Amino acid sequence: MLNAHQQQIIRLLIASHGMSRTAIAQNMKLSKAAISTLIKEMLHAGLVEESIPEASGQGRPSVLLKMRADSAYFLGASLLGEAITLVLIDMHGRALANRVLPLNLDPEQLTHAIADAIPPLVAAQGISTDQLIGLGVTLSGFVDEHQAVCVQSALLGWKDVPLAEMLKARTGLEVSLENDAKALAVSEKIFGLAKKVRNFTLISHSDGIGSAHFFQGQLHRGAHGAAGEIAHCTIEPGGRPCRCGKRGCLDTLASLTAIRENMRDKAIAAQTLPELEIQAAKGSRAAIAILHQAGNALGLAIANIVQMNDPELIVIAHHPGAFDGLLQTVVMQAIDANVLPSIMGKTPISTIVLDDESWARAAASVAAYRFLIHLPE
Amino acid sequence: MLNAHQQQIIRLLIASHGMSRTAIAQNMKLSKAAISTLIKEMLHAGLVEESIPEASGQGRPSVLLKMRADSAYFLGASLLGEAITLVLIDMHGRALANRVLPLNLDPEQLTHAIADAIPPLVAAQGISTDQLIGLGVTLSGFVDEHQAVCVQSALLGWKDVPLAEMLKARTGLEVSLENDAKALAVSEKIFGLAKKVRNFTLISHSDGIGSAHFFQGQLHRGAHGAAGEIAHCTIEPGGRPCRCGKRGCLDTLASLTAIRENMRDKAIAAQTLPELEIQAAKGSRAAIAILHQAGNALGLAIANIVQMNDPELIVIAHHPGAFDGLLQTVVMQAIDANVLPSIMGKTPISTIVLDDESWARAAASVAAYRFLIHLPE
Repeated sequence: MLNAHQQQIIRLLIASHGMSRTAIAQNMKLSKAAISTLIKEMLHAGLVEESIPEASGQGRPSVLLKMRADSAYFLGASLLGEAITLVLIDMHGRALANRVLPLNLDPEQLTHAIADAIPPLVAAQGISTDQLIGLGVTLSGFVDEHQAVCVQSALLGWKDVPLAEMLKARTGLEVSLENDAKALAVSEKIFGLAKKVRNFTLISHSDGIGSAHFFQGQLHRGAHGAAGEIAHCTIEPGGRPCRCGKRGCLDTLASLTAIRENMRDKAIAAQTLPELEIQAAKGSRAAIAILHQAGNALGLAIANIVQMNDPELIVIAHHPGAFDGLLQTVVMQAIDANVLPSIMGKTPISTIVLDDESWARAAASVAAYRFLIHLPE
Repeated sequence: MLNAHQQQIIRLLIASHGMSRTAIAQNMKLSKAAISTLIKEMLHAGLVEESIPEASGQGRPSVLLKMRADSAYFLGASLLGEAITLVLIDMHGRALANRVLPLNLDPEQLTHAIADAIPPLVAAQGISTDQLIGLGVTLSGFVDEHQAVCVQSALLGWKDVPLAEMLKARTGLEVSLENDAKALAVSEKIFGLAKKVRNFTLISHSDGIGSAHFFQGQLHRGAHGAAGEIAHCTIEPGGRPCRCGKRGCLDTLASLTAIRENMRDKAIAAQTLPELEIQAAKGSRAAIAILHQAGNALGLAIANIVQMNDPELIVIAHHPGAFDGLLQTVVMQAIDANVLPSIMGKTPISTIVLDDESWARAAASVAAYRFLIHLPE
């Protein structure tokens, strides 16, 4: 078991790309001798490793300490698509293997399907049970503050399903549930673009629109787990009805579902957003109008986040080819047009591309986050 | 000098309405004997006091420990009105004395005016210099992350004024600057309605509209100090021009300045918001329309905060009689209409009334917050 100082060292190593013993000692206000003793145990336990950077300039370069990729493994399951994707990641966040399983919406059968798939997946990688730390599950909907119960999911048709307990009983693993956008934000925080950022917002542009905030280095769940639900911010007062029951929500204007509906309504010869971009580039006024409407709505919502919360970074997660053309241009213009001129252009906006495995990797990162950030005291 | 454990005890006492030695020991995971020793020193230093609650039920009631009101004093100066208000508060946040000084916008002269007013104000209360811990100053505009420099204030006509250093040189006090709404949020956090709340948003409805967030128990300044600037969220795309340079900002629809302009434009026989409410109550359609427009805009902005950040509490600070009638009704309806039905009505919304001293007390609370929360290590 790690002591409190060693847990602190792990937190520092995860938030950095490697640190020297001297830097760790300075940060923790301990002597270098004390740090060296602590690290010796961690090296012996196979948790960390040393790497010697290339010499730069004068003097001997400091040896950097890093987490070992094989020091721990995590599983993630995504319930977001038409099938379950199960993935195994290492301590560096790399996916080592995956399985695609049929999605059965009955919680009992879903639990069995996931539990049965885990042993062969892990065994095939030669990983022992005690190296496998936890399982994360990501879904569309609300999760309770203990990340144990799916409080509500319209997509799954679930209400108050204690999935973590059910999965733990069958797998023996610690299980954490998480909302889709929050899981993706966690993934960017511990393995991705937001590693060194304490305050950022991730926006996922998919069939629905999600978002999640980190404040003071912590995932912000909100008082009712509803933080980040920008999909249902009113962008067009009195606008078209939304499935949530109110009108003019961002989702009704800018989600991929809304964009596809608009394509059908206007009989545009396109099935997907990349195809719609092609039509717009060819000069289709109807295609241009749809992209303008979606881009202005999404840009205004992002501008509101910048204006209200002033994050250090915005990360937009999108489907392949779905944020490259006119939509991106309009979003960026709408953000600039709707924030105070004095902060205009100051918030970095990065993008990441969602693939078939992204949500499952994000789910696994939730298990890693729980292990790393909320290390048991 | 207090040690780290004693600083932690102070934090616990400030966040509570008094705690027993047993509760403190449990919270800090120390023995009751160790806590008793620490507290003995703090009693001796006059920082804390004991109070014996009335007996309730069986057994001897625990002695509660509280911060002593006279353990420390703080000064606050508000630069928000047509004059400077200077106020002295104790450790319980109570105002003991104040002075109103002419406001000279020249930073040098303003510094002299404040510095000269402090010694007689403090001496008249029989307070010694070493009990006076710090001075807070609140202003409309942006303040740097060290709370030392007024980066920009349109109201004062300042840019990059190092006011904290100037005041410290003349007074010998630690000086902290703060934006108006952020100072008011700090005041509610350490002395007011938000004492036990970790995530909340304060909204100040005055000539302009301000807001500020606490996340994870910390004031959230934002990457550029701009967090909480809801006044310039676009509520009416393409709407009327705002002094900030863009259009349709919340401020152009719902600030007291905007409401007064609307009263003049529509030649309503009212000078103030309470008078406008009287006209509306009498059935004036023009008055009702102005209040509806302002209330819908403010309600939508607050709904966006609820929807995006899901705070535990919203505090609306308003002028006397300026949030009692139709405006309040419309704001509350607009909040409910623009949040997800599943969280509708779940966020408590409290109000506080601003008086002539509120901003100066808020400024003093900024000095107290710096002392209490950022105790030197």
